[in-house]
Amino acid sequence: MSSAEKIEDIAKRKGFFWPSSEIYGGMSGFYDYGHLGALMKRKWENLWRSYFLSLDDNFYEISPATIMPEGVFVASGHLKSFVDPVVKCKKCGHMERADHILEEELKENFEGVSSEELEKLIKQHGIKCSKCKGPLEEVGTLNMMFPLNVGTTKVTKAYLVPETAQEAFVNFKRQFEVLRKQLPLGLAVVGKAYRNEISPRNLLLRMREFTQAELQIFFDHDNVGEHEEFDEIKDYKLCLFPAANKQTGKVEEVSCWAIIEKMDLPKFYVYHLAKIQQFYLDILKIPKEKFRLRELSEEERAFYNKIHWDIEVELNDLGFKEVGGCHYRTDHDLSGHQKISKQDMTVNIEGKEILAHVLELSFGVDRNIYALLDIAYAEEKERTVLRFPFGAAPYDAAILPLVNKEGMPGLAGKIKDVLKAKGFTVFYDYSGSIGRRYRRMDEIGTPFCITVDTDSLSSKDVTIRDRDSMKQIRVGIEHLPMVLEQLITYRIEFTEAE
Amino acid sequence: MSSAEKIEDIAKRKGFFWPSSEIYGGMSGFYDYGHLGALMKRKWENLWRSYFLSLDDNFYEISPATIMPEGVFVASGHLKSFVDPVVKCKKCGHMERADHILEEELKENFEGVSSEELEKLIKQHGIKCSKCKGPLEEVGTLNMMFPLNVGTTKVTKAYLVPETAQEAFVNFKRQFEVLRKQLPLGLAVVGKAYRNEISPRNLLLRMREFTQAELQIFFDHDNVGEHEEFDEIKDYKLCLFPAANKQTGKVEEVSCWAIIEKMDLPKFYVYHLAKIQQFYLDILKIPKEKFRLRELSEEERAFYNKIHWDIEVELNDLGFKEVGGCHYRTDHDLSGHQKISKQDMTVNIEGKEILAHVLELSFGVDRNIYALLDIAYAEEKERTVLRFPFGAAPYDAAILPLVNKEGMPGLAGKIKDVLKAKGFTVFYDYSGSIGRRYRRMDEIGTPFCITVDTDSLSSKDVTIRDRDSMKQIRVGIEHLPMVLEQLITYRIEFTEAE
Repeated sequence: MSSAEKIEDIAKRKGFFWPSSEIYGGMSGFYDYGHLGALMKRKWENLWRSYFLSLDDNFYEISPATIMPEGVFVASGHLKSFVDPVVKCKKCGHMERADHILEEELKENFEGVSSEELEKLIKQHGIKCSKCKGPLEEVGTLNMMFPLNVGTTKVTKAYLVPETAQEAFVNFKRQFEVLRKQLPLGLAVVGKAYRNEISPRNLLLRMREFTQAELQIFFDHDNVGEHEEFDEIKDYKLCLFPAANKQTGKVEEVSCWAIIEKMDLPKFYVYHLAKIQQFYLDILKIPKEKFRLRELSEEERAFYNKIHWDIEVELNDLGFKEVGGCHYRTDHDLSGHQKISKQDMTVNIEGKEILAHVLELSFGVDRNIYALLDIAYAEEKERTVLRFPFGAAPYDAAILPLVNKEGMPGLAGKIKDVLKAKGFTVFYDYSGSIGRRYRRMDEIGTPFCITVDTDSLSSKDVTIRDRDSMKQIRVGIEHLPMVLEQLITYRIEFTEAE
Repeated sequence: MSSAEKIEDIAKRKGFFWPSSEIYGGMSGFYDYGHLGALMKRKWENLWRSYFLSLDDNFYEISPATIMPEGVFVASGHLKSFVDPVVKCKKCGHMERADHILEEELKENFEGVSSEELEKLIKQHGIKCSKCKGPLEEVGTLNMMFPLNVGTTKVTKAYLVPETAQEAFVNFKRQFEVLRKQLPLGLAVVGKAYRNEISPRNLLLRMREFTQAELQIFFDHDNVGEHEEFDEIKDYKLCLFPAANKQTGKVEEVSCWAIIEKMDLPKFYVYHLAKIQQFYLDILKIPKEKFRLRELSEEERAFYNKIHWDIEVELNDLGFKEVGGCHYRTDHDLSGHQKISKQDMTVNIEGKEILAHVLELSFGVDRNIYALLDIAYAEEKERTVLRFPFGAAPYDAAILPLVNKEGMPGLAGKIKDVLKAKGFTVFYDYSGSIGRRYRRMDEIGTPFCITVDTDSLSSKDVTIRDRDSMKQIRVGIEHLPMVLEQLITYRIEFTEAE
C-alpha cells in the first residue's frame, strides 16, 4: 500500500475521516471527520488560536458568515480571476486541470503557470486526455466559486466564500473602530471555505469544502521595516527554499538577521515567518528536515502578493506539500473594497490617514491534519502506532481498568470523570486484554494509557504507560491531573520501567 | 428603544455582532460575530460540548461536510416537505410567510399550521399585503434549501444542509462499527445550517445562515422506558408547559417521577428533558421563571416526531421564544436512509437486529447567544452592565494597570501572560481612568477586573473587582489563577469591600 492508502485505511477503520455522504456513494472532494478526526481538528485549531492570537494583544478572532454578496468578490477580484486553467477532451468531454494533466505526465509542478504557457507545453509534449487518450481542446478557464441565490422576492447574487480572508477584510473598519483604534490589528477566522475544484484529490489535501485558519494582520506600511519583538528571533534560523534554488532543491538555514541583511525582506514579514516556523517545529513537532519555507517566484505568486513564501511539509510518497502561506498582500484588499463598496477604508491614527496593508498568515487545517497523520504513522514489528505530538492527539489518555470487576471499573470511572472535568480528552476502555487495549490506543495515537489494577485500590496509585517508549511509571492518583499536564506539555522521558 | 434595539446597539458598538458584509449594505438574515461575539459563541459551544457529551461515555462529536447530495434530502423528506407557506401579493409581487403575516395581524403564533388552514384564516380576516395593501394570491409553498451544483464535467445536485442532523444520520452506521458497537450511541455536531428563509427577522433569532448544536442519540426502542441514571433526577422538578395549557398559559412544576406516572412519557425521554433544564438553569444560569419546556400538540409537531417539547426562554418584549427542542424522531431517519441509499442501517447487538430510534437534542446556538444577551442586559443608574453567567462571558477577566507607568504595565503584562497560558480569556486595558475602564468592562460583561496598583509591586497582590456587586477583594498574585477559577466556577460572593 502507498502511504496515502495506509492513511485512508486507518482513517476509515478507526474514525478519523471518510468520504462524506458515503452511504450515497460520496461526493468527490468532500470528507466527514469521524469522532477522532473531529477531536484532532479541534485540538489543532485551539493550538493555532492560542499560539497566533498570543503574538499581539491586538489580535482577535471573529466569526463571520460563509455566504457573501457578489460585490465582495468583484472587489477581491475572485469573480474575474478565481479561475483554474482547464482542458476538455474533444472526444469524451472529460474536463481536467491543465496544470494537473501536465504534472501527471511530466512529474513537475505547474501550479500558477499561465494558460498560454500551459497550452504551449501541452502541444509540445503531445498530451492527450487522461481518460480516453482523445485530443484536447484549447486551455480554457473555469471559475471555482459556488454561486447561490439568496432571498425569495428579491434575489441577491451571492457566493460561498472561497477563502476566509474576505470575511476579515469587510469587517476591518468596524473592528478597528470598536477596538483600540490601533495598528497592527489582527483578525483571525477559523472557518469553512468552498471551491468547486475541477479535480479534487489526495484525500484531505485538495477538497471542495475545507477549513482554513487565517490571520489577517492590518498594519501601517511605513512600519514594515520594524517589529518590536524582532530581537527575540534575530538569531533564529529559518529553513528557506528560495525561488533561485528551484533547480538545485537546496534548503538553506539562515538566521533572521542575515535574511534582513542579504535578502531584502522586511522585518515585519521575517518576524512572522519565524513565528510560523516555531509553531511547526516547537508546537506541532514537525521534524526540521521535513519543514521548509518556499519562496514563490514572481510568475508563481498572485499579482497582489508582493512577498509570498509557502509553508511546506514533506509527506511520504508525495514530497513537499503546501500546508499554508505567508502573504504580504499590500493594500490590494482594502483598496479594492474601498473602490467597490464606496466606503472609506482608511483609518486615522494620531492625525495620520492610513490605508492599512495586510500580512496574511494562511493555513489549511485539513492539510495540516493530513500532514500530522502522514508524519505520525509508523509500522513497528508488533504494532502500528501514530506518533502524534502530544498536544494534537485525539485523546490525551486512555483509562483502562485491568479487569472489568473487583472495584477497578468504579475507580477507573472516577479517575475518568476527574480528568474530563479538568479538560483532558480521555477514552475509557474495559474490553479485551490489556495488551490489546494498549495496541488499540497506539493505533489512534493516544500518548498515555492509565491502568487501574488491584494495587490501585489499596495504594491509590496507577500505572501510566508512554505510547512511544512503552515504558511505564507509577503515579499517585491525586497527582494524576498535574502529572498528565506536565507530560503533555514537556514531553518528559520515562526513565523507570516496570 | 425596544430591548431588541438596545441589544443591536450594544452588539454593534462593542463587537458582539452586526450585519454581514455590512459595507456592501448587508444581506437580510446574515450576521457576522465580532471579537466578543466570537469568544462568547465558542464558550457557549464548549459549555454545551462538555455538558452533553459527558452524559454518556458513548457520546461523541463528529465534524462532517455541510454540503450533501440530493439523495440525503430525498430520504429525509426535506426535498418534499421542507417548505414554508407563502403568500404573494397580486399587485406588488412581495412574498411573505403566510403564518407570519397572520401573526403580525392577529398577534398569535401560527407556526406549523397547515396551508389550508392559513388560507382560510387569511380570507376570514381579510388580510392584505403588508407592503402595499394589495390582494394576496393563494397560499403556496417554497422550499427553503439552498441548491448547489457540485463538479464540472459531471455535475451532482447537492444542497447546503438545512440542519446538522442528517450529517449524524448518514454517519451512524460507520461510527457504530468503529466504536464500541453499543447503543445508546450519541453523535453530536456543532456546525452551520442554511435556510433560505422568506422573512428572516429578530436579529439572531431567525437567520439564513446559523449554527446548530445537535446531539442525535441512537438507541434501542425496546429500552425507551429505561435510563440507568434516572434515579438521580427522579425528584427533580421540570418547568412544563403542556399543550393542554395553551389557553391558560400555565407552567407547571412537576417532578420527573410524576411525569412518568401521570403523563405517559418514557423515562429515556424525561431523563434528557431534565438534563436539558439543568443545563439552562445550572450552567447558563437562566432564571427559572424565564425557562419552560413547551409541548407541541400533534398538529404543531412534524409527523415523524412522536414526542416534541421545545426549549423556551422568555425574552424582553418578545415573550417566550424557542431556543432548542427535544425530539423523539423514532426510526424515521434511519429507515428513510435505508430505503433511499439501499444500505442496511440495522445493527446487530448480541444477536438482536436493531433499527435504532433517534432522540434528538437540538439547540440553536445563535438564539442562545441572543437570549443570554437579552437576559444579561441591565441599565443601572451609573452604568450599563451585561450580567452574563461567568462561564459564558467573552472575557473571564480584565487586567488593568492603575496607571500606565511606574512598573505597573510590566507586572500587569506578566499576569496577563500567566492567565492566558492557563486558558483564561483576558483583556488588557491601560487607557483611561480606572472608573472608565471598569464601566467599559461592565458593558461587555467581564465578570472580574484585576487591578495592578502601586502596592502590587511591593506586596505582590492585586485587587479583584466583582462585576455584579462591584465589591473588591485583595488577592496574592501567585494565587490568582486558582482564585479566578474558583470564582468563575462557584460564583462566590465577595464579602469584604474596600
